[in-house]
Amino acid sequence: MSKYFRLVQITVVAMLAVATVLSAAAQSKSAPLKLEKEGSFFVGGRDVQSDTLSLDPRYAASGTITIDQVYVHYQVPVKAKRHYPLTLIHGCCLTGKTWETTPDGRMGWDEYFARKGFPVYIVDQAWRGRSAGSPAAINAVKANKAPLDQLPGVFSAGHEGAWAIFRFGPEYPKVFPGMQFPLEAQTEFWKQMVTDWSDTLPTPNTTVPALSELAQKVDGTVLISHSQSGIYPFQAAVLSTKGVAGIISIEPAACPAATDDMKPFKGMPILVLFGDYVDKSTRWAPRLKLCREFVQAANAAGGKAELTLLPDVGIHGNSHMLMQDKNSLEIANWLVNWINHHVGQKP
Amino acid sequence: MSKYFRLVQITVVAMLAVATVLSAAAQSKSAPLKLEKEGSFFVGGRDVQSDTLSLDPRYAASGTITIDQVYVHYQVPVKAKRHYPLTLIHGCCLTGKTWETTPDGRMGWDEYFARKGFPVYIVDQAWRGRSAGSPAAINAVKANKAPLDQLPGVFSAGHEGAWAIFRFGPEYPKVFPGMQFPLEAQTEFWKQMVTDWSDTLPTPNTTVPALSELAQKVDGTVLISHSQSGIYPFQAAVLSTKGVAGIISIEPAACPAATDDMKPFKGMPILVLFGDYVDKSTRWAPRLKLCREFVQAANAAGGKAELTLLPDVGIHGNSHMLMQDKNSLEIANWLVNWINHHVGQKP
Repeated sequence: MSKYFRLVQITVVAMLAVATVLSAAAQSKSAPLKLEKEGSFFVGGRDVQSDTLSLDPRYAASGTITIDQVYVHYQVPVKAKRHYPLTLIHGCCLTGKTWETTPDGRMGWDEYFARKGFPVYIVDQAWRGRSAGSPAAINAVKANKAPLDQLPGVFSAGHEGAWAIFRFGPEYPKVFPGMQFPLEAQTEFWKQMVTDWSDTLPTPNTTVPALSELAQKVDGTVLISHSQSGIYPFQAAVLSTKGVAGIISIEPAACPAATDDMKPFKGMPILVLFGDYVDKSTRWAPRLKLCREFVQAANAAGGKAELTLLPDVGIHGNSHMLMQDKNSLEIANWLVNWINHHVGQKP
Repeated sequence: MSKYFRLVQITVVAMLAVATVLSAAAQSKSAPLKLEKEGSFFVGGRDVQSDTLSLDPRYAASGTITIDQVYVHYQVPVKAKRHYPLTLIHGCCLTGKTWETTPDGRMGWDEYFARKGFPVYIVDQAWRGRSAGSPAAINAVKANKAPLDQLPGVFSAGHEGAWAIFRFGPEYPKVFPGMQFPLEAQTEFWKQMVTDWSDTLPTPNTTVPALSELAQKVDGTVLISHSQSGIYPFQAAVLSTKGVAGIISIEPAACPAATDDMKPFKGMPILVLFGDYVDKSTRWAPRLKLCREFVQAANAAGGKAELTLLPDVGIHGNSHMLMQDKNSLEIANWLVNWINHHVGQKP
């Protein structure tokens, strides 16, 4: 019988080895997603007192609320140990939904990066989405306790005006030729847009110190920002470089000025990424130019910064919302390669 | 060699059988969470025009925005096929965060139910969290285009006032003896609370038709509501019983009136669930009484409704936020048994 047992033993060991190799590799797109851990928490936040929390008699007018905290949802895939977590930070008038299922129902970057072995952290900016703001200023004015100009500066971007900002085309409803955004599902996209309170917040935005806290809490992360939040990772690095393993700023509304102190960025892997049609956009072309100047200044001061236009690496047709474009996973994959090459893994 | 191969074949078949049995069972709390699918989308929503979307010159004042949609995040565990999805609907001044990681860092009901084999759908109520509202009324008043009383009726619940509502104790900061809420982590709990716009919405709340749409989209779900949203599943069933496989209303602010038409609830498994200390709360004791009257009326009309106080089934010390109490998973497990017994699985 010993020969039988020996053969069974060899077979079992071989099967376990194959299983180990398979599970150590990136998780395929169609197989079940295996998570080591998932959950949510907040970073930042402070207590404030107010006498105008409510004008509804069911809820006390006076009391304490907590504001400025930033909601974080995370997923850690199995076998992620040495990959740096990725922190995804949405832009204007949007929430963390930006990175989830696309308007036309395809997999979001959140899940794709997790399947590639990266822990993924997604935030809602302060005063937006699941991150609380305060109604106190509105109620103070309504109760005649404050003048009209104390009303908060809140805005929503309308479909028509957002069209050119998101670079779907030169103006509403014209479409750039070769456009990759799934405009057939634009109805679903517009549902993602929420009211933006950022005009009422200080500079840097309250989200920035919260991101710095998050970066330190997870002991190193690549901060991936977009549009309005484009500059936040740079501002977080100015507060403290602790925990900032790298910065990927996607279509930033602004880069740091080339005249800024470049010390915080010395040796830090930085990628500024733009999509297509930028030269056709009076809104985005000047921002691209300023970002180029920043990248030059950072590198002159010992930085490891680069700026990439997707068409220059053979990827065409991308809007400002490139994480939702039809070729979004091709771009995500390009980013995974960039991260592996420039940021590497935890020591 | 044929004997060797036969033995290897038997061994492999046996191992596969063991693997199948293991994966068909509920997923244990410490093993990786295996998801067949996850993602997010919106239900509901309508386009509205406005001339006061923005007073910030960077964003157009006039245009179209989409409001009233409800954000839904879902996870489908492997081997979930015959379980009805559970839809979790948060209460006043909160968001879908309610059901995630507890303030003291324990597993939320979202993951627990998924590990028990249920697809889980979590919403943010309309005009809250990732579900958009409109800034148009605020801007109209600020721009002197509308009178002061057109300002929206928004409120936040302060810590002190919320204390007795959440039944942590009779009044702030007193604590009921045996309290299960993790008050040592209350700082993290207060961060979950957001501004509530529900006073500005119609009755039934805009979330209700969206829940009905969701129930039909997923082809059957148990609607699990809490507090402010307690009555929403009943209101959704009045709109249409399609897709409403059962209702679990946790500590509802209101049940349907006993004098309402009970036809929509005929044959529908309904559970109204309350925690502890209800008789000590002037806020909750009358609501419990009215819910008892509803349950009697529903059953008199051929319903399958029941009302349970957790202490009556041997579970003690629960606050209004019982999904976050220290014994939250014991309650979740009790609910799983209730669902399996009263709702059953898909045909």
